[in-house]
Amino acid sequence: MKNNDFADIVFNRSAIKVYDKNVKISRQEMLEIINQAVRAPSAVNMQPWRFVVVDSAAGKRIIRPLIKYNTRQCDSSAAMIFVFGDMQCYQKAEQIYSTTVAKGFMPEHVKNELMDGFMPFYQNASKQTMNDIVKVDCSLAAMQLMLVARAHGYDTNPMSGFEKSKIAEALGLDADRYVPVLMISIGKADYKPHGTIRLPAEEVTTFK
Amino acid sequence: MKNNDFADIVFNRSAIKVYDKNVKISRQEMLEIINQAVRAPSAVNMQPWRFVVVDSAAGKRIIRPLIKYNTRQCDSSAAMIFVFGDMQCYQKAEQIYSTTVAKGFMPEHVKNELMDGFMPFYQNASKQTMNDIVKVDCSLAAMQLMLVARAHGYDTNPMSGFEKSKIAEALGLDADRYVPVLMISIGKADYKPHGTIRLPAEEVTTFK
Repeated sequence: MKNNDFADIVFNRSAIKVYDKNVKISRQEMLEIINQAVRAPSAVNMQPWRFVVVDSAAGKRIIRPLIKYNTRQCDSSAAMIFVFGDMQCYQKAEQIYSTTVAKGFMPEHVKNELMDGFMPFYQNASKQTMNDIVKVDCSLAAMQLMLVARAHGYDTNPMSGFEKSKIAEALGLDADRYVPVLMISIGKADYKPHGTIRLPAEEVTTFK
Repeated sequence: MKNNDFADIVFNRSAIKVYDKNVKISRQEMLEIINQAVRAPSAVNMQPWRFVVVDSAAGKRIIRPLIKYNTRQCDSSAAMIFVFGDMQCYQKAEQIYSTTVAKGFMPEHVKNELMDGFMPFYQNASKQTMNDIVKVDCSLAAMQLMLVARAHGYDTNPMSGFEKSKIAEALGLDADRYVPVLMISIGKADYKPHGTIRLPAEEVTTFK
């Protein structure tokens, strides 16, 4: 990692619209970034996040017509990362929990109690319930991905302005199973971003 | 902040179930943590996150019956932070964008173009569309909050096991307007957490 300064990474992050077109990110480094991003938590560790990294000219030609406003990000970034939620994420539950036991992080009986508890819930959850679960979990990983990217010296922009009903199929995924959550451009900023404001905490917080 | 080591903050974060009951967090520090958390991005900077921080014994008595599995976190944490999404977040759009212009971060004509673009969309969005927007945006802030908490020397646990249909009203909020996204315990860990595993990036990533 190039930058380990938490305050700089978090507080100087900006959504970057135009990137230096000469900057590429190797697939090896992209996998490193994703491995670090997915240290994010998820409900019952189900990790419903799935990533499609569009870093080739051919890939960008596929997605370009499905992007509404953010064509500059698409054209100039090193890659566009699509974060999808897997509505059948529980199919990896046995693998996740067996590995956790094998690594010595959880006793077998706890694995069984937990899985007996959540598996029927996940298997029988409505589409709406699963949609909410994967939207939240995938967004946690997406935020961490944007910060990890900065630790690697890159900038990002999270975007939702794309054809959500068409993107899975365009990228070769089963649209019923994989729900699009966010599209994130990544690369190096080609300009100095302007500032931005936030509502003060007092205005959005109550205490009980 | 007590810790500015990005790698330590991100990679040594664990979901903590039991906290040191002697640790309290002042409301001033809690507002600082939230101010830092909400540097997270949101769609068209609409910042739909609203926080209810339950840090009093009386407040915890209100929420305790609505928490399904995570009563240890509720009983031992310094606070339980509820993150809600404001389905009418666009009511603050004029304030957000006027302030952005006043600070010199955006020309007036860009503000007008942007607001003319997104306001009709937000005002006419279906409940489902707004639900998805606020779930994603609030989760981005929630992830950043958990990391900022670690920079302040605290631990957290994100949880969704609570009575989502009852929590807003119990906390004095309009349940039609404020959608619960996550509940986060915060405090100092009272034990050394065990490890956890993640699916490797190769397994959850494809390149195009």
